[in-house]
Amino acid sequence: MPVPQDAYYGIHTARAKENFAAGARPANPKLMHAIARVKQAAAKVNGRNLALPQKKVQAILAACEEILDGGLDAHLIVDAYQGGAGTSSNMNVNEVIANRAIELLGGSKGDYSIIHPIDDVNLHQSTNDVYPTALRIAVIPLLRQLAEELASLQEAFQVKEHEYADLLRLGRTQLMDALPILAGQSFGAYAKAAARDRWRLYKAEERLREINIGGTAVGTGLNAPLTYIYTIADELRELTGLGLCRSDFPMDGTQNMDVFVEVSGLLKAAAVNLLKISNDFRLLSSGPAGGIGEYILPAMQAGSSIMPGKVNPVMAEMLGSVAMRVIANDTAVTLAAASGQLELNAFTPVLAEALLESLELLLHGIALFRERCLTGLKLDESRCLEHVERSGVLAAATITYLGYDNAAALAKAAAASGRPLEQLLLEGGWMTGKQIQEVLHPLEVTKPGIPGRSGQSGVEHGRRLIPE
Amino acid sequence: MPVPQDAYYGIHTARAKENFAAGARPANPKLMHAIARVKQAAAKVNGRNLALPQKKVQAILAACEEILDGGLDAHLIVDAYQGGAGTSSNMNVNEVIANRAIELLGGSKGDYSIIHPIDDVNLHQSTNDVYPTALRIAVIPLLRQLAEELASLQEAFQVKEHEYADLLRLGRTQLMDALPILAGQSFGAYAKAAARDRWRLYKAEERLREINIGGTAVGTGLNAPLTYIYTIADELRELTGLGLCRSDFPMDGTQNMDVFVEVSGLLKAAAVNLLKISNDFRLLSSGPAGGIGEYILPAMQAGSSIMPGKVNPVMAEMLGSVAMRVIANDTAVTLAAASGQLELNAFTPVLAEALLESLELLLHGIALFRERCLTGLKLDESRCLEHVERSGVLAAATITYLGYDNAAALAKAAAASGRPLEQLLLEGGWMTGKQIQEVLHPLEVTKPGIPGRSGQSGVEHGRRLIPE
Amino acid sequence: MPVPQDAYYGIHTARAKENFAAGARPANPKLMHAIARVKQAAAKVNGRNLALPQKKVQAILAACEEILDGGLDAHLIVDAYQGGAGTSSNMNVNEVIANRAIELLGGSKGDYSIIHPIDDVNLHQSTNDVYPTALRIAVIPLLRQLAEELASLQEAFQVKEHEYADLLRLGRTQLMDALPILAGQSFGAYAKAAARDRWRLYKAEERLREINIGGTAVGTGLNAPLTYIYTIADELRELTGLGLCRSDFPMDGTQNMDVFVEVSGLLKAAAVNLLKISNDFRLLSSGPAGGIGEYILPAMQAGSSIMPGKVNPVMAEMLGSVAMRVIANDTAVTLAAASGQLELNAFTPVLAEALLESLELLLHGIALFRERCLTGLKLDESRCLEHVERSGVLAAATITYLGYDNAAALAKAAAASGRPLEQLLLEGGWMTGKQIQEVLHPLEVTKPGIPGRSGQSGVEHGRRLIPE
Amino acid sequence: MPVPQDAYYGIHTARAKENFAAGARPANPKLMHAIARVKQAAAKVNGRNLALPQKKVQAILAACEEILDGGLDAHLIVDAYQGGAGTSSNMNVNEVIANRAIELLGGSKGDYSIIHPIDDVNLHQSTNDVYPTALRIAVIPLLRQLAEELASLQEAFQVKEHEYADLLRLGRTQLMDALPILAGQSFGAYAKAAARDRWRLYKAEERLREINIGGTAVGTGLNAPLTYIYTIADELRELTGLGLCRSDFPMDGTQNMDVFVEVSGLLKAAAVNLLKISNDFRLLSSGPAGGIGEYILPAMQAGSSIMPGKVNPVMAEMLGSVAMRVIANDTAVTLAAASGQLELNAFTPVLAEALLESLELLLHGIALFRERCLTGLKLDESRCLEHVERSGVLAAATITYLGYDNAAALAKAAAASGRPLEQLLLEGGWMTGKQIQEVLHPLEVTKPGIPGRSGQSGVEHGRRLIPE
Repeated sequence: MPVPQDAYYGIHTARAKENFAAGARPANPKLMHAIARVKQAAAKVNGRNLALPQKKVQAILAACEEILDGGLDAHLIVDAYQGGAGTSSNMNVNEVIANRAIELLGGSKGDYSIIHPIDDVNLHQSTNDVYPTALRIAVIPLLRQLAEELASLQEAFQVKEHEYADLLRLGRTQLMDALPILAGQSFGAYAKAAARDRWRLYKAEERLREINIGGTAVGTGLNAPLTYIYTIADELRELTGLGLCRSDFPMDGTQNMDVFVEVSGLLKAAAVNLLKISNDFRLLSSGPAGGIGEYILPAMQAGSSIMPGKVNPVMAEMLGSVAMRVIANDTAVTLAAASGQLELNAFTPVLAEALLESLELLLHGIALFRERCLTGLKLDESRCLEHVERSGVLAAATITYLGYDNAAALAKAAAASGRPLEQLLLEGGWMTGKQIQEVLHPLEVTKPGIPGRSGQSGVEHGRRLIPE
Repeated sequence: MPVPQDAYYGIHTARAKENFAAGARPANPKLMHAIARVKQAAAKVNGRNLALPQKKVQAILAACEEILDGGLDAHLIVDAYQGGAGTSSNMNVNEVIANRAIELLGGSKGDYSIIHPIDDVNLHQSTNDVYPTALRIAVIPLLRQLAEELASLQEAFQVKEHEYADLLRLGRTQLMDALPILAGQSFGAYAKAAARDRWRLYKAEERLREINIGGTAVGTGLNAPLTYIYTIADELRELTGLGLCRSDFPMDGTQNMDVFVEVSGLLKAAAVNLLKISNDFRLLSSGPAGGIGEYILPAMQAGSSIMPGKVNPVMAEMLGSVAMRVIANDTAVTLAAASGQLELNAFTPVLAEALLESLELLLHGIALFRERCLTGLKLDESRCLEHVERSGVLAAATITYLGYDNAAALAKAAAASGRPLEQLLLEGGWMTGKQIQEVLHPLEVTKPGIPGRSGQSGVEHGRRLIPE
Repeated sequence: MPVPQDAYYGIHTARAKENFAAGARPANPKLMHAIARVKQAAAKVNGRNLALPQKKVQAILAACEEILDGGLDAHLIVDAYQGGAGTSSNMNVNEVIANRAIELLGGSKGDYSIIHPIDDVNLHQSTNDVYPTALRIAVIPLLRQLAEELASLQEAFQVKEHEYADLLRLGRTQLMDALPILAGQSFGAYAKAAARDRWRLYKAEERLREINIGGTAVGTGLNAPLTYIYTIADELRELTGLGLCRSDFPMDGTQNMDVFVEVSGLLKAAAVNLLKISNDFRLLSSGPAGGIGEYILPAMQAGSSIMPGKVNPVMAEMLGSVAMRVIANDTAVTLAAASGQLELNAFTPVLAEALLESLELLLHGIALFRERCLTGLKLDESRCLEHVERSGVLAAATITYLGYDNAAALAKAAAASGRPLEQLLLEGGWMTGKQIQEVLHPLEVTKPGIPGRSGQSGVEHGRRLIPE
Repeated sequence: MPVPQDAYYGIHTARAKENFAAGARPANPKLMHAIARVKQAAAKVNGRNLALPQKKVQAILAACEEILDGGLDAHLIVDAYQGGAGTSSNMNVNEVIANRAIELLGGSKGDYSIIHPIDDVNLHQSTNDVYPTALRIAVIPLLRQLAEELASLQEAFQVKEHEYADLLRLGRTQLMDALPILAGQSFGAYAKAAARDRWRLYKAEERLREINIGGTAVGTGLNAPLTYIYTIADELRELTGLGLCRSDFPMDGTQNMDVFVEVSGLLKAAAVNLLKISNDFRLLSSGPAGGIGEYILPAMQAGSSIMPGKVNPVMAEMLGSVAMRVIANDTAVTLAAASGQLELNAFTPVLAEALLESLELLLHGIALFRERCLTGLKLDESRCLEHVERSGVLAAATITYLGYDNAAALAKAAAASGRPLEQLLLEGGWMTGKQIQEVLHPLEVTKPGIPGRSGQSGVEHGRRLIPE
């Protein structure tokens, strides 16, 4: 089994590369870097405990830094779809660190008498405690970034909420003309959903912080010295700044992957909100002539090679695509997590790829949508008002006065005759002109209470309806 | 373990009912009936082979008929979510047949010396060959009915295709105004999709017809006499009229459930088409004032308790709900089928429930949608034409003459100024009035070819564009 | 449209029953009851506000109580798969309440001049605020019961953890012989997972408590008096004892269903744990002759109609089936939630059915598994020890002393020759007999640290390894 | 918007690259190549019809060939997760072809007066007919290769079927000792499943062959000359050798994506079979000391960094990982296909990536598993026989003679006492020694019929049980 001359990886990696060639892409670099981070912590602890001489420690630390800087990515080559619960990824990192460290010590790559990938770099570790720990180290920063990105999304919606706090727009239920709302209120509803998404991700982190490093192969901690076991998590906490802590029962973290199902499920909940937002944006910008046309999305690219001047909602579609992929990835996470058996889950790699892909897709997808679609969004105000007027939905405002059956009859009559509701109300003697003006006033119908009666309940007739 | 006095089921069923009480509903009756069908065939073959005395055979056959008529459904009580690969369902049927047959022979329920649920009714069978066989017997007729229902759906779409073969309607891509089409063409596209769905289901049946009955517990056929093994499938074919045939390798049918995944996958493909149709109907009937409003769906019920006169697309929504459930059921079918281990799949019951539910939901859901929504659908013709005109999408028809960049510039100018495209073309000297009339003629833009040039290519300038 | 003489439902229900006949089962009774609960609160508030006369209020309250007691379930008949965002369920409850209340007041069913289903029972409500509110009221108690059931599961695992705290058992990673563990530790890992599941469900409730009642059709609160809007949630909180609170922005709760996706995702995480547990139980009880056979599950029913004496892991299979269905239901919840459009989600009914089914399945499925499988579980102790001894996995304990390459070579030699590891170590001069005894001592290899060195690190050589 | 000096792509691509940066990877190269194939056919037809001068045609054809050879892959950079129904992928290919063709004609990149990406390369096309057509062109060859790979898998299983046609092995149902089978029969069951998978893929191709090219933007064929429309599919058929044909109703192919759902569903059915095979291999090779240990998988890599000598079923795990990803990808395909609206499906790109990934993963994953796991598989024959003997499952063979209840009692007695079944049968006077020998003969219990009675039914007592 030949290894290329200039490769930092070694024989285990080369063999794994041959065995696992199904996917077209290498394991997620962020995860490989996180493995290097674990190696770094282990080397420090082992050095401190005199299990490794300082010369080796320093070389290993330096090699780890190079990996963390991305400088050795070309040598982190094992495939995303690998058997073995991550052993190949672990060995790839072990070998690259060893060979680079050997070089730094003046040796020749492959001379493992200087630094050994297993005896030195992997000292006191097992793939089974390294890999789940590294996955958490890879996930948490992405989760934090995503939570921040969701906060930015929420704020961007709130900007629009205030920008359009005065504009009447037709509400639709089941896509049918329903009741008037203020255009800003829609953005308020999206902002609330984004806030929930953010909060959930924020809360999920606490379960991710418990790491099973030190548990070695099955979680019992066999073969690692106690001084190592009880300090390695602290070392990682300091190195990463991620608030990591040692699991009080590492056997759990070695075999149970429900925490990642939880996170993926929350990403799916976010994806569901994004799909709705994406669909709403596409609906409201549809047409414009033959659709709703109330939203004017920024034009990002020529829409069509055959229809000149067509502008498509491509950023909303991109967001929708991302959301669909995230939902699909949740299936992979679920299947892999459910396939754990006894003391280990052998399918963590397929889980890891899907989960990290979801995080990265959401992170970038939301930012792009926000910057290139939401921020530049404008509303066609006259179109909004036209829809409210033309719809006749104001009949709903008369139910309190006329009863449901009468109001329904009146609405039908209005629709059939094409005559304004106001006229029918007057002619039928249902209401006086003054009553009509009070009851059907557009602002009366976009806030809590019975139109025309807000004075009676002592609540000030204010305009500001959107809760902060 | 007490069994109610008037129950036809026995102790195994009562115990199963206690063990498996998670679901709120009994196993699908169609499947229980199909198990009775297997029992009927077995009794006939066993009688013919002198393995069972005729008196017993006749009593068993009569009891089976009562089950098949639905008369004993109240006694088929085991839960849909049961462990044991269907043993409880099998035993429930065995016991009800035995006890009813005992009664028919003048005995008292429970006197298994007269007819024994296992020694007689289950003679030469195992749950492991009975249950997968019965599932096929339950699925095939539903599949045939569904194929017929899809044919009816296709025909109903074709009726609409012809009804609106002359009506111009705005085509939309990415929900944006695109090019004019004929309204009938939409229905033609749905009809083609329905035809494909029908064809697929029709072709899937052939793989369902192979039954593993006679394979007994692990597919080897242990304990069943050869005369039984080689005739039981024929007997079932005659009794059911379903073209069943004996698997040449029953061990396969006992452990592999991919055929049901295939069928469920095809149901999912149909569900995807139905979701699109459901969404299109809802989009096109949306508003009407603040939406597209080109479709007028039959009003099926009062739409709202607060908005008088509102008519909602409830039948399309129902169809969409059904489609969603079918897609979800496919997940259950997939998970259960993937969980087969070695010589058996222990999770066939959860698979069976999901698959049969999907078939029944689609069967009824499509029929209801067809009868109560599609057939009565009307188009608002003036609204359709208005959208075409207002959209200015006809600019696309000038690309051949002006090139893409010029056409795009012109379209933008038209959109910005609000002036008709025709005027801009004339003023800019791009086309003469005659050319414009020829090129932008609505009918020219709804059929293959370059508008204004159909004469040149020798193709008759006919109206009929929809392929039969 | 005829309504049966003795039916308490009315014309809207009858029509809905005809329109929505795709499913074979009525909407979940718990949800229908929760709708009645909302009606009850509304009647009280409306009575207090003088919007409804006390006579009507009392009759309505009494009718609601009858529904809540389950006494009118036979009249709650609308199908689970309905269009219309729940309007039919809402109207079914409205009509049953009205007709029963009319009767209580001495009138004849259908005489809506006495009590009107819409004008009185539905007063100040819309399906769009009633239905999502009722769904929360139906979900929260189930969630609480499930959290309690998970606590019982955790405790039952902890009982086993202590029961088998001294028994050595072979650990397996990737199903291969790995390192010894204590049998009790496995149960500890399951208990930790169950504890996490419980905690998550507990935390999810806070987001469910925000109800959008009072928002009426689109969340703005049109047509409901302010006195009603600001007290109805309080009334519901008191009636239900569920800690409900009024949403500060009801438009959000009317259109966004991500909270249910969150809950369903957490149920899926629990299902993933249950699937693993179910699979582990089945693996460890497999055989016994041709499998692992370390677990002896209580026999719940005759296992086979062809193989006498066979006892199958039916309760674990049932639990697995339930978990699969829960995962499938999550797909339905996700699809429905993602299909919300603009001011409403029209697919809440299909979401509701799936979510409530998941909750009920888990609740009962876990309890049955606990009572009928876990509690009675026994371990075959000699089998457990035999596997540890026969496996030779103790070679791992020598890595610290021999290095990985030597230990691996030794392990291979042991496997090839069939000779005990101890002998090879001695013969090769790798270790002295005393060292071997210290290092390979079974208890040394099931706890943190390097076997044979626990004295050196100053940690007491105690037996108790399982964290409480 | 700057474009790098040496890039062959242009401004549309650069803009798309900025807009769609969510994914970390470019669109699948096979799809980009297939788009180039469409461009090639269009150029040929346009040249023949004198719509493009030969000089341009030749340059375009040459540029297309370079893309097809993979030589320009570095310039096909648009992201996998793009909005716009594939417009960006289409434009990327258009621009690379144009710029490379310009260069071939001696011009400078960007001088579109020589060859224009839209006016020339995209002549008579729309993304909406190019993209779905190209996807079919990318899918069909992969489908064929996969069908062939499945045939190879089937053959490899059949080799094992014959290799182990004589070896007794314990059958397990619900993982419990069931009945003896021949080891070869297992492979026969896998071979049958693989044969079905192959057949299904083979049959699905016919629906993929219908291409919508010539339909332009909405399927009506606007703007393409009839001579082009009626020959472009023929040209593509010849260029690709894929049996493509023109859809008789291109509007269908532009908006309906159910064919891809069908294909993905079939891939999922294959994945389900592969998951079962993967799990069976892992189960049967488990242990060996503490598991079943009947299969000996070829050792592919060091199994553990902590447990020396451990060999893990990594190739089976890799296969399982691939299968899980394929099932997850089916979710993406389903979601995207269900999201088509009116005349187009805007989410085809996310569908395309998932589908092509599934095809490639299966193709390579199956081949690797076959070559590196299945072919080298050996069975531990003595272990197999030991399990059969130890299990006592032969009691089942006595049911015909003793009745179920007696056999069950006997089996229980045997299990409880640990004494051989034969002795109990003799002592109890149930059977004579000769009967026992005949009935319990291992070969009698692995083939159809009642053990000990095969002579009676006139069937030759042959050994060969596996159907060819």
